[in-house]
Amino acid sequence: MSWVGIDLGGTKIYAVVFDGTAVLAEAKAKTPTQGGPLAVVDAMAAVVRDLGPVDDLVGVGVGAPGVIDHEAGTVRQAPNLHGWMEPFAVAEALSAALGDVPVAVDNDVNVGTLAEHRLGAGKGAENVLGVFAGTGVGAGLIVDGGLRRGPTGAAGEIGHMVVRRGGRLCGCGGRGHLEAYAGRAAMERRARDLERKGRDTLLVDLAPGRRMTSGVFAKALAAGDAVAQELIDDAVGALGVAIASAVALLDVPRVVVGGGLADRLGPPFVARVEQACRADVFPRNPDLRIVPAALSDQGGSIGAALMAADTLAPVKVRR
Amino acid sequence: MSWVGIDLGGTKIYAVVFDGTAVLAEAKAKTPTQGGPLAVVDAMAAVVRDLGPVDDLVGVGVGAPGVIDHEAGTVRQAPNLHGWMEPFAVAEALSAALGDVPVAVDNDVNVGTLAEHRLGAGKGAENVLGVFAGTGVGAGLIVDGGLRRGPTGAAGEIGHMVVRRGGRLCGCGGRGHLEAYAGRAAMERRARDLERKGRDTLLVDLAPGRRMTSGVFAKALAAGDAVAQELIDDAVGALGVAIASAVALLDVPRVVVGGGLADRLGPPFVARVEQACRADVFPRNPDLRIVPAALSDQGGSIGAALMAADTLAPVKVRR
Repeated sequence: MSWVGIDLGGTKIYAVVFDGTAVLAEAKAKTPTQGGPLAVVDAMAAVVRDLGPVDDLVGVGVGAPGVIDHEAGTVRQAPNLHGWMEPFAVAEALSAALGDVPVAVDNDVNVGTLAEHRLGAGKGAENVLGVFAGTGVGAGLIVDGGLRRGPTGAAGEIGHMVVRRGGRLCGCGGRGHLEAYAGRAAMERRARDLERKGRDTLLVDLAPGRRMTSGVFAKALAAGDAVAQELIDDAVGALGVAIASAVALLDVPRVVVGGGLADRLGPPFVARVEQACRADVFPRNPDLRIVPAALSDQGGSIGAALMAADTLAPVKVRR
Repeated sequence: MSWVGIDLGGTKIYAVVFDGTAVLAEAKAKTPTQGGPLAVVDAMAAVVRDLGPVDDLVGVGVGAPGVIDHEAGTVRQAPNLHGWMEPFAVAEALSAALGDVPVAVDNDVNVGTLAEHRLGAGKGAENVLGVFAGTGVGAGLIVDGGLRRGPTGAAGEIGHMVVRRGGRLCGCGGRGHLEAYAGRAAMERRARDLERKGRDTLLVDLAPGRRMTSGVFAKALAAGDAVAQELIDDAVGALGVAIASAVALLDVPRVVVGGGLADRLGPPFVARVEQACRADVFPRNPDLRIVPAALSDQGGSIGAALMAADTLAPVKVRR
């Protein structure tokens, strides 16, 4: 049996064929920025066709950014996808576009955490917190071996934990949320702001009119840029506080840190986050391990395939 | 069928006979401050005998402060019980003292949350966060209808979530933890500290040589004492931050706030906590409700009986 897993991101669509242990094929395309959900569904269908013929296909899983209703197969909100303002039944639409292949959908961070839990840095742990720092910051929760989605599908919003009361303004309108310190988009806003206020920084020089990618942050940091150092210090501290709080509340001995920023800055960044966390964490957790994600870019698509396998299995297994 | 539930506190032991819907009898005694775990077990056995004959007794549940190994029936650490420094098999010892009646033990905050979930302010919600502000601050988690204890039994340590990085010293050695702002013991330390530094406060006048109880805080607050107001303001703000963070991470639409301080200061205190929380919370939670605990002093013992019913039922039901 095999499954197709699709990682639907704000900039690209990445798909794999997965047989439960190995990736058999992969394909990708840019995410359309015009035409709304229908254009995105067409693009996903085209990427699936690019994978070539798939033997014994059970179904397709999609990991999408935003608020997902996993049971209903709908994307309720996806602020990072262009023109995707209303709830949209993506599972149904993609299934129709693929000739009635079963499709399941879940949050991108949830499927990323599932992949790290089953095959990556969270393997062997029944309780895992997967923290992904990219454009925003999100988390997935594996609780007693299963994904915790929460009654409104919003579990894992670690990016909106409060790390500093009354602190920096978050994209959601709240103040002092983790994402305002450790999300790439917020870090970019702050870098441009500091530059306008007279601070000189490579970050803006390297990304004058384009997106300040995680790679740009890595370059500026490597070059000793002071603003980049400050922003990364703030991100590390904020991640440490939020993870310490999450560990105290949930009793999760394994924390996997991934996402664009963590992947680019690598294990030294995750080691700094661990250090910051240990400075704050309730001491009763000697077995706590904070580790870098192992599956990098492929985690999302493999996780989407695993989620499809859980959801669409010929004999459905309830967890 | 009926169960005995025992709320083992730092100052008193309170027991009820519970038939699943109503309290049929109650008894209490002071918690021994000498003689360690064995004296406490003897005192609990005496309170159970004081309840009188119990028809159809299935078993006894104990809600104890500290770190509990529910599966093993042991109290691993109980800093608030005198002379209770080593792990102790309380279920086995109490069972022997009662002539082999089955005994189950769990954390006091867990059983308090269970009681609020089944019979109190958390009724009807499948996901509940029970926050108890007393000497310390703890929480219980009801996740998808069941108690989440966590792999090391330490889930729900909301008192050690970080509400201010590098902030006030917590009893655990960490900094800026919720308990350092909203735990009665920490608030008492700070009040005495401020008084020594020259601040005049009713709090110390009302409790010169004895424990600064929640009742003392309520009296000083009612009299407009400035130090009491500051300390309560800090506690409210810290509880708001921690609950906002917990709700973002867990997606729990119902938060029940209880414990000595919340019970004494009443619904206006909980309403202020709710207001503080809503200032910080991720806006995606229109259905969030933060409500005062409904069972007050009896929650712990009723919860202990409910926990015994879940654990020791003649036909064990797996949740």
